[in-house]
Amino acid sequence: MSASTVSASAPETKPLTVVGGGLVGSLLALYLAQQGHTVDVYERRPDPRRSGNVEGRSINLALSDRGWRALRGVGIEEAVREVAIPLYRRVMHDQRGQLTMQPYGHDGQAIYSVSRAGLNQRLLDLVDREPRVKVLFDQQCRRVDLRNRTLEMFDGAAETSHVIPYQHLFGTDGAYSSVRAAMQKTDRFNYSQHYLNYGYKELTIAAGDAGSWAIEKNTLHIWPRGQYMMIALPNLDGSFNCTLFFPYEGPYSFATLQTPEQVRRFFEEVFSDAVPLMPELEQEFFENPTSSLVTVRCYPWSVTDEVLLLGDASHAIVPFYGQGMNAGFEDCTILQQLMESHGSDWLAIFQEFQQQRKPNADAMADLAVYNFEEMRDRVADPRFLLQKKIESKISAQYPQHWLPLYSQVTFSHLPYAEAWANGQAQERIMQRVMPRIQSEADYDLPEVQALIAQELAQRQ
Amino acid sequence: MSASTVSASAPETKPLTVVGGGLVGSLLALYLAQQGHTVDVYERRPDPRRSGNVEGRSINLALSDRGWRALRGVGIEEAVREVAIPLYRRVMHDQRGQLTMQPYGHDGQAIYSVSRAGLNQRLLDLVDREPRVKVLFDQQCRRVDLRNRTLEMFDGAAETSHVIPYQHLFGTDGAYSSVRAAMQKTDRFNYSQHYLNYGYKELTIAAGDAGSWAIEKNTLHIWPRGQYMMIALPNLDGSFNCTLFFPYEGPYSFATLQTPEQVRRFFEEVFSDAVPLMPELEQEFFENPTSSLVTVRCYPWSVTDEVLLLGDASHAIVPFYGQGMNAGFEDCTILQQLMESHGSDWLAIFQEFQQQRKPNADAMADLAVYNFEEMRDRVADPRFLLQKKIESKISAQYPQHWLPLYSQVTFSHLPYAEAWANGQAQERIMQRVMPRIQSEADYDLPEVQALIAQELAQRQ
Repeated sequence: MSASTVSASAPETKPLTVVGGGLVGSLLALYLAQQGHTVDVYERRPDPRRSGNVEGRSINLALSDRGWRALRGVGIEEAVREVAIPLYRRVMHDQRGQLTMQPYGHDGQAIYSVSRAGLNQRLLDLVDREPRVKVLFDQQCRRVDLRNRTLEMFDGAAETSHVIPYQHLFGTDGAYSSVRAAMQKTDRFNYSQHYLNYGYKELTIAAGDAGSWAIEKNTLHIWPRGQYMMIALPNLDGSFNCTLFFPYEGPYSFATLQTPEQVRRFFEEVFSDAVPLMPELEQEFFENPTSSLVTVRCYPWSVTDEVLLLGDASHAIVPFYGQGMNAGFEDCTILQQLMESHGSDWLAIFQEFQQQRKPNADAMADLAVYNFEEMRDRVADPRFLLQKKIESKISAQYPQHWLPLYSQVTFSHLPYAEAWANGQAQERIMQRVMPRIQSEADYDLPEVQALIAQELAQRQ
Repeated sequence: MSASTVSASAPETKPLTVVGGGLVGSLLALYLAQQGHTVDVYERRPDPRRSGNVEGRSINLALSDRGWRALRGVGIEEAVREVAIPLYRRVMHDQRGQLTMQPYGHDGQAIYSVSRAGLNQRLLDLVDREPRVKVLFDQQCRRVDLRNRTLEMFDGAAETSHVIPYQHLFGTDGAYSSVRAAMQKTDRFNYSQHYLNYGYKELTIAAGDAGSWAIEKNTLHIWPRGQYMMIALPNLDGSFNCTLFFPYEGPYSFATLQTPEQVRRFFEEVFSDAVPLMPELEQEFFENPTSSLVTVRCYPWSVTDEVLLLGDASHAIVPFYGQGMNAGFEDCTILQQLMESHGSDWLAIFQEFQQQRKPNADAMADLAVYNFEEMRDRVADPRFLLQKKIESKISAQYPQHWLPLYSQVTFSHLPYAEAWANGQAQERIMQRVMPRIQSEADYDLPEVQALIAQELAQRQ
């Protein structure tokens, strides 16, 4: 059988090409190899396991059900779970250090704090054990020549450029994707990059004595302050990575905090219980960069059977729902399903992938911005927390008919667009129910019970 | 007086740099020169007056009041008016060749059909007479190095690249601006390019005997067909440039017209009165490109006092309101006002320019898409035409309180955003008035008169 008559389900004879060996790129390589393909992965940075600054600035990510399912699909769920910390709830810190809390789900449901660098290294270790995958580091993609199907690569170690042909190219090179940049120059490519007027700054809560956690461990901590907020996620060593989300301009903003004294005074005023746990506050504040928050949308995600974008390259979102990595990992799950159906008919796979996935990526982008408002503002409102408690009760009473939006996004595999539509419909019902509610006990009032039953009946 | 202490109102000692010598770039150069500055204009294409294909494919544009004002500001209104054809009304052609019409304004108000190539050449001739401006052709901007303030230019004639320093750079290089491309890579640059699912094809209605016009000359002709349309604008030689706006995909689309027979059959069915006037229909249909329709939005439009985008480079719009060039020319008017106020304080000029102009560019982009629906669909509806007649009557009776949206956009200098807001408010009133109206005469009914008086009183 010649190469040109190879059956649709046989693996490719030439290697597939993946540009970007981050989280999504390395997981994708494992999925492609699982289908029998050989894969070359080109990564811009040096091998993170060999370079001196193994960790760099440590960023934490929240792994949830969609991510776990994708890891399970290539048999690496357990290996990752070993280094993940479950977070069962949000704890809100008010200006005086008073705490309130909100569980994420029920029955031990949790999101998991993992180190981005640690997870990436673990994925690369797993890729190394897969003989069909080759990862080439220090390879910066300078130019993609669509139609001629070549890449111009700059080898950072040798400081030389070389041209590489490809047959099928997967762009997993992130929010500032160079593969996408080439597609942006083709006709009728819709594209947008939109920045929030907020930046973020990484800070640290130090480990307690003997590697203990100075604040509650299995928790996502939030200091909601209306127009800005700080959050903290735990590390295995007892420390917490904190992130301040803060306006670039305005009365309380990066523009107004210019000296160590201003930073300390501000933090002592608004994050009073955290400051004593942040010994390097001022130093970190001025040494760590202020990073921006972008949403990227584009379409199409593919060029014929030649190129497909996945992960942040096609749908970078802001981090407030903890779904950026999970959405990218879910891309791999969906792609795998389509490879099972269509074998090596890449045109069909790429077309179906983008058609199926684009509305969900758009919904997730909207959800991520929406959750920023919830985290920085609404979680500080007792009425909002009461509404969440009432919703839990509805969900417990009508488990077939009501799953809170957060659970649909985080603890289900429902397409994001459906989750978002359901969530908005449920919110409209809550707006009609809550005027009758002054306390949790009011949930059992006959009129409230009747109203909820009626609303749910109308929804059917 | 040293360069560093030069007064804010003195002209720059070094030339200003303009990338893009199209319509907006050449007009801008005249405005900058008028302020006493010297200007270097770099244009990607060869000099259109010297290259063989002087005309190329001829595209017509509609000049209206905002454009005329900008031309007047540098004293070239009359020179352009000599080659412009006034269009006093729309004439709609239905499927059987029946005509209806709609005046654009009153008292001889008109938009003016001009040839893009002819206008560009006339502007370049005027620039040549201005000793402060130098235009360099065949200079392709390959790279803009922001912060270092240099351009990498490729000289098409010499086939060499060279690096040019600049002090202040004006990007007037159109919808696919290379200056904007450099800005897109800077942090927090918001950007979107969005394509309609429609393309367009240029076609020709031939001149009649002895250079006469085969259909009414001082008219914009429309063949509205619901989901698509053709339009025609007159040329000085008796021909008309036609443009078919047509879906890329679907039952009636570029995808389904694949052979000369299919094209002829389709045109004979839906544009029956035009086909006999289009002797080269099939040839043009397959030789002329299918062009796409993009809206570009971005922000900021400037980098410190270093770069400013104008015209399509910052706000490319679809052509359906005939305002793309007019909006770009109005940019020059606004910039001129700011140069009068701020002299050579480019930071202040650029900041104010973008803040003042961005909401208007956004409104114009929305208006352009809105007018596509009106032209291809609503103008074929007798109720819509009746509404327009009633609106004219309201405007005649209450000239201080009611100017139709089209007139606000086309025959006034009201900021586009205000025009759009006024137009939407007026449309809401019309939605309440029209149920009482069956014919033009109903306008004089006491209840209609009372309703309109009441609506206008509430608007105050």
